Amino acid sequence: MIQEFLKTRTFTGDLCKPLQLEDFVIQPVEFVSPTKWHLAHTTWFFEVFVLTKFSKDYKLYNADYPYLFNSYYEAKGDRVMRTDRGNLSRPSVEEIFNYRSHVTNALSKLLDSNPNHNELLSIVDIGIHHEKQHQELLLMDIKYCFGHNPLFPVYEESFDEQSSQEKNQNWHSVKEGLYKIGHFGKGFCYDNETEAHQVFLQEFKIRDGLVTNGEFLEFIEDGGYKDPLLWHAEAWDWIHAENINYPMYWQKKEKGWFEFTLNGLKPLNLDHILSHVSYFEAAAFAQWKGYRLPTEFEWEIAQEKFDWGKRWEWTESAYTPYPNYKKAAGALGEYNGKFMVNQKVLRGGSALTSSHHTRKTYRNFFHPHMRWQQSGVRLAK
Amino acid sequence: MIQEFLKTRTFTGDLCKPLQLEDFVIQPVEFVSPTKWHLAHTTWFFEVFVLTKFSKDYKLYNADYPYLFNSYYEAKGDRVMRTDRGNLSRPSVEEIFNYRSHVTNALSKLLDSNPNHNELLSIVDIGIHHEKQHQELLLMDIKYCFGHNPLFPVYEESFDEQSSQEKNQNWHSVKEGLYKIGHFGKGFCYDNETEAHQVFLQEFKIRDGLVTNGEFLEFIEDGGYKDPLLWHAEAWDWIHAENINYPMYWQKKEKGWFEFTLNGLKPLNLDHILSHVSYFEAAAFAQWKGYRLPTEFEWEIAQEKFDWGKRWEWTESAYTPYPNYKKAAGALGEYNGKFMVNQKVLRGGSALTSSHHTRKTYRNFFHPHMRWQQSGVRLAK
Amino acid sequence: MIQEFLKTRTFTGDLCKPLQLEDFVIQPVEFVSPTKWHLAHTTWFFEVFVLTKFSKDYKLYNADYPYLFNSYYEAKGDRVMRTDRGNLSRPSVEEIFNYRSHVTNALSKLLDSNPNHNELLSIVDIGIHHEKQHQELLLMDIKYCFGHNPLFPVYEESFDEQSSQEKNQNWHSVKEGLYKIGHFGKGFCYDNETEAHQVFLQEFKIRDGLVTNGEFLEFIEDGGYKDPLLWHAEAWDWIHAENINYPMYWQKKEKGWFEFTLNGLKPLNLDHILSHVSYFEAAAFAQWKGYRLPTEFEWEIAQEKFDWGKRWEWTESAYTPYPNYKKAAGALGEYNGKFMVNQKVLRGGSALTSSHHTRKTYRNFFHPHMRWQQSGVRLAK
Amino acid sequence: MIQEFLKTRTFTGDLCKPLQLEDFVIQPVEFVSPTKWHLAHTTWFFEVFVLTKFSKDYKLYNADYPYLFNSYYEAKGDRVMRTDRGNLSRPSVEEIFNYRSHVTNALSKLLDSNPNHNELLSIVDIGIHHEKQHQELLLMDIKYCFGHNPLFPVYEESFDEQSSQEKNQNWHSVKEGLYKIGHFGKGFCYDNETEAHQVFLQEFKIRDGLVTNGEFLEFIEDGGYKDPLLWHAEAWDWIHAENINYPMYWQKKEKGWFEFTLNGLKPLNLDHILSHVSYFEAAAFAQWKGYRLPTEFEWEIAQEKFDWGKRWEWTESAYTPYPNYKKAAGALGEYNGKFMVNQKVLRGGSALTSSHHTRKTYRNFFHPHMRWQQSGVRLAK
Ligand SMILES: [Fe+3]
Ligand SMILES: [Fe+3]
Ligand SMILES: [Fe+3]
Ligand SMILES: [Fe+3]
Repeated sequence: MIQEFLKTRTFTGDLCKPLQLEDFVIQPVEFVSPTKWHLAHTTWFFEVFVLTKFSKDYKLYNADYPYLFNSYYEAKGDRVMRTDRGNLSRPSVEEIFNYRSHVTNALSKLLDSNPNHNELLSIVDIGIHHEKQHQELLLMDIKYCFGHNPLFPVYEESFDEQSSQEKNQNWHSVKEGLYKIGHFGKGFCYDNETEAHQVFLQEFKIRDGLVTNGEFLEFIEDGGYKDPLLWHAEAWDWIHAENINYPMYWQKKEKGWFEFTLNGLKPLNLDHILSHVSYFEAAAFAQWKGYRLPTEFEWEIAQEKFDWGKRWEWTESAYTPYPNYKKAAGALGEYNGKFMVNQKVLRGGSALTSSHHTRKTYRNFFHPHMRWQQSGVRLAK
Repeated sequence: MIQEFLKTRTFTGDLCKPLQLEDFVIQPVEFVSPTKWHLAHTTWFFEVFVLTKFSKDYKLYNADYPYLFNSYYEAKGDRVMRTDRGNLSRPSVEEIFNYRSHVTNALSKLLDSNPNHNELLSIVDIGIHHEKQHQELLLMDIKYCFGHNPLFPVYEESFDEQSSQEKNQNWHSVKEGLYKIGHFGKGFCYDNETEAHQVFLQEFKIRDGLVTNGEFLEFIEDGGYKDPLLWHAEAWDWIHAENINYPMYWQKKEKGWFEFTLNGLKPLNLDHILSHVSYFEAAAFAQWKGYRLPTEFEWEIAQEKFDWGKRWEWTESAYTPYPNYKKAAGALGEYNGKFMVNQKVLRGGSALTSSHHTRKTYRNFFHPHMRWQQSGVRLAK
Repeated sequence: MIQEFLKTRTFTGDLCKPLQLEDFVIQPVEFVSPTKWHLAHTTWFFEVFVLTKFSKDYKLYNADYPYLFNSYYEAKGDRVMRTDRGNLSRPSVEEIFNYRSHVTNALSKLLDSNPNHNELLSIVDIGIHHEKQHQELLLMDIKYCFGHNPLFPVYEESFDEQSSQEKNQNWHSVKEGLYKIGHFGKGFCYDNETEAHQVFLQEFKIRDGLVTNGEFLEFIEDGGYKDPLLWHAEAWDWIHAENINYPMYWQKKEKGWFEFTLNGLKPLNLDHILSHVSYFEAAAFAQWKGYRLPTEFEWEIAQEKFDWGKRWEWTESAYTPYPNYKKAAGALGEYNGKFMVNQKVLRGGSALTSSHHTRKTYRNFFHPHMRWQQSGVRLAK
Repeated sequence: MIQEFLKTRTFTGDLCKPLQLEDFVIQPVEFVSPTKWHLAHTTWFFEVFVLTKFSKDYKLYNADYPYLFNSYYEAKGDRVMRTDRGNLSRPSVEEIFNYRSHVTNALSKLLDSNPNHNELLSIVDIGIHHEKQHQELLLMDIKYCFGHNPLFPVYEESFDEQSSQEKNQNWHSVKEGLYKIGHFGKGFCYDNETEAHQVFLQEFKIRDGLVTNGEFLEFIEDGGYKDPLLWHAEAWDWIHAENINYPMYWQKKEKGWFEFTLNGLKPLNLDHILSHVSYFEAAAFAQWKGYRLPTEFEWEIAQEKFDWGKRWEWTESAYTPYPNYKKAAGALGEYNGKFMVNQKVLRGGSALTSSHHTRKTYRNFFHPHMRWQQSGVRLAK
């Protein structure tokens, strides 16, 4: 555990290496957080859920930090409004790295002296997965910051966005029947993956390869964004209110279409996998194509038949609790349960997801108009 | 069919009898429509989906009316913005009743001369159910208008809101197993109730009686609206942004609690059935009570064990399509399918629902914060 | 006084004669009030400022009405939010006419028995002028309601909007010097016209005739709404946010330009006087023409040289207090003084202004983007 | 001129010395700009108004910068939306200092070789005063950033906010008469200070000392923020919408009142000069005290009788053009004229104003609700 803890803490720092100091500070929209906030918030999580609970006489590094770095835990007191995260130039980045070191060291010692303390280990495990989630958020947020800067800075020339796609687009069939869904057995999972239970599925087919840029461009060129019958009513309002005409990181220039990636602004490759579309766009595209999105249950049962992990794959399923779902007591109960309304489940993982973070029962979730996560589309029928 | 058609048209007029002319005009919030708009819009529906299609040489009663009285059918062209419905004093109420007579007569004649035209009859059937839906909306909207007027006008002293509740609150058990869901056999249904299909349900219990005002008052007095751990995150934001502290038509005065009904403002009866709460409040209440809301499938399977039809009952289920759902071609395809995101299913019916309108497979749907429909709470565990 | 009082009360009723009942109810935008609100509010003014003060044992007609019909007098207690005026179908129009009769009668009696009570007479005089202001507002508001209804109802075919304009456009010169400004001598005036005082004016020229539709159309056709250098910064934001491209009641159809008036929708007459432009548009037009707007002092000194009273004429002057301005004690002090910021002064009067209401020292005022008043443009240099 | 130019450029850099790199980046509210934006925008001003015009073959340092660093000059093309200034982490601070050096050097050379080019010198002079204005804005903005950070960082312990006030509060009289207003003679002035002209003033009295914190605290403790009769209608709406209860940088803690200054958070000194109030608060305070604010003309005539320059002093005067005001042709005409609506004139100067920047005819202007400038109150009667 201590190894995994230290590796995770170090990797967060590694992700920051390509950045300039100014990049740590900004928050261009409410749903993006500054890099320095991610660095501090993941640290606060360990401090407040582990150190202040299990470490005798532990004193807060700075009494103001819980107010500054709590994200959404009502049970943990007041906090800076989310929109204000990018309005704080202090504490400085250097100071936040000091805070990280302080907490990493204190926690290492605590783990060292309590190697078999199960409750402690279990919450540290949550903290590690929490930090991995924020590693992905950090990359999503940096991509947003750079992709919305007119200078289009490069994060890292060699960053692998896993954009290539096998050409074959086969349809796999799954027979109707009773199937087991959700996490069971050993290994970490979030509470929202439990409890495991049976579902009955109608027969369905699901496609091998994710939708490509080329397929989506056909949709655009066929007037997909202009045909109201393809869209949900809220989607239609959204594309007009926000003037949405293509995926988040696409751009039309005189020379043709471009796509911004963590490698910079590049000509759009039609064979690459589509990225950064909302559920609204995914559903309209599927409708136009004559297919539909899979449910999260169909996805979970079919997933062994195809490669996944390159894009977060929108499902038709709303994010609601599994049968007999119980949320944890206290503040940790706020981790997942309170978001189970008005969101859609995404399955799989993306090129921005940290290793060993996702799994076949993992339920990611976003509001249907969100698209700064690296989301893509898999078709079903 | 012609009998049912005429009865429905007449009943809409009957609902207006207690009103003064001024009451037909106003639209105090976006989601409420003026009575005169309901009268005209239901008429437009028959005119545009039936008469212009099946009645040779039929001419629009007024070429401006499609623009004025289309609600949300993109395929039927531009329309007055929803927020502007209450900004139009003309056409007058008298003129709209003339419009109704004109269309009712034309349609009667058409039905008379085509008694076996199945496509015609099937669309008229939709039009009849559509008008019944608007009859309920008309009452919901009048209740809103009167319940938000400082003079609290009475709609009808004798209107039966079906508020009394059997005292016994038994729990009924349903065994786990495969069950058939959705509409099959004869009789009218909306497309969203199809296709019928099997679901597997875990064992569950569901309560006999709906939640009462008394039970909900306990929740309030126990600080239910003040404990963030009971609420969804969006719900918590909503109750603060909108300053929500009790059900929509409750009022706290010096002399105690009152409830506004179509019979006027009355002292709150604790034995009466709770009305006009949002899904957010329903879910928080269930959480506080240690139970949960049923899913729409649980409700549909269990419904024969209890009385229903007094309140629209919130379910935990999101409004998504059934397997193999197909929406109709053209504008009628906009009736249901395009709303299948970000809404919750309600089952049952209410005291404001027209007779022969609802059924056990009927799927009503509203956004989780909505509460001007007469909604209530049934508990499951 | 009693004659003038009764005449004014009657005239308000006369203005309503062309209306249908539905027209009394609506409030399409915040700054417009329903006709029935004007009828009641002017009555409330007499009730609360005169009857409850001077009439022994007078009882409020209805204890809820002060809450419903107070406009903006903080010293007179809470009131319905301005945006809600059109959300109240009750009290009915008939009931409000009863309220009017009741108060008119009570006040007539009071005046009868106190023919020489100066304080009483002085406040009744304010009430009469207040009602005349609301007569103009009533017409402005009806024009707005009808001019924004797709059916473009006619108020009265014969209503005289005083649109014809003398052809001659002479420039009158005024020499520099000290001039006396503001109201003195006998006769009614508002507090904002006092105290009379001297101002020094530079020499200036002012134009005889008001700007015509034809002149303004040239501005439009020359790209006037597209040249940022002609506009104030806030104006430029406003025309883009609100998509402003022509005066409020103009419309471009296939057959050419039309203008809505109280006589209905008519082809635009280029020789008619321009109406319903904002200060922002007036100033941009003047800039484009190479001239400027007069100050209110220039206007007041020059006014004897030209005809006025056909349009409210925008001036360059901000609405600020005259030297030694004292506002009245109590609620009546709220009549004018509290609006003396962020508004521009208009001088003259309009075709919608009641007779004997305006005068050469009268200071009307609106925010610079407002244009539902019948405003026009006079040029100076 | 070259000396003054270099001194000004250097002083801007000096103001940044107390800052950490993170402080250059943030924009907590729309009206605040990031320090790095000020550094670049003042440079862009010289580049685009001087170098590209007068320096043969001058090439833009970076073709993207005009888009990034134009503030509001429509005639100079599109630009980043004002709200986005703080959303750009690149170009980096270091890169912007390089840009500054490049332009400073190029301009020095240009001045060197054109010592008598009057048009050139005159625009450079505007550029120097422009940069001085931004020096004050830079301090205002840093004060806002630090004063709204929960850690309340110190800008500089020794920064002199000129808060001490002579105790004597004498009233000086000025006789009625004709006075000359506006800039004449030699020396730099903005176009809004011309042309010089005569005004007639009534006799008035003006107070020697500015209003103190102690006086304003009396206003608060007397319920000043709670009495609607003291406030303009828009002010009353504003204090409620924004929850305004005291000057911008005041704070009430358990231990009493504190004031944030560039020296950090300090206990409120009642003898110090009041700072950072809006016109709305200034006018309400004057009303409560039984006095009024001076007009800008009264101020200009009376200013030789008192010390000024410690606070921007709100006047009752709206910001409108002087008689025969002509704005410059082209983009420089946008400097002042287009803001002459809805703003109030402030006279004097503040502790944050750069030396040799203000003068007795200087007309500063802000919207009446603004208070992040170091504004104070002088009383008249
Ligand atoms: Fe987190
Ligand atoms: Fe409908
Ligand atoms: Fe009034
Ligand atoms: Fe500038």
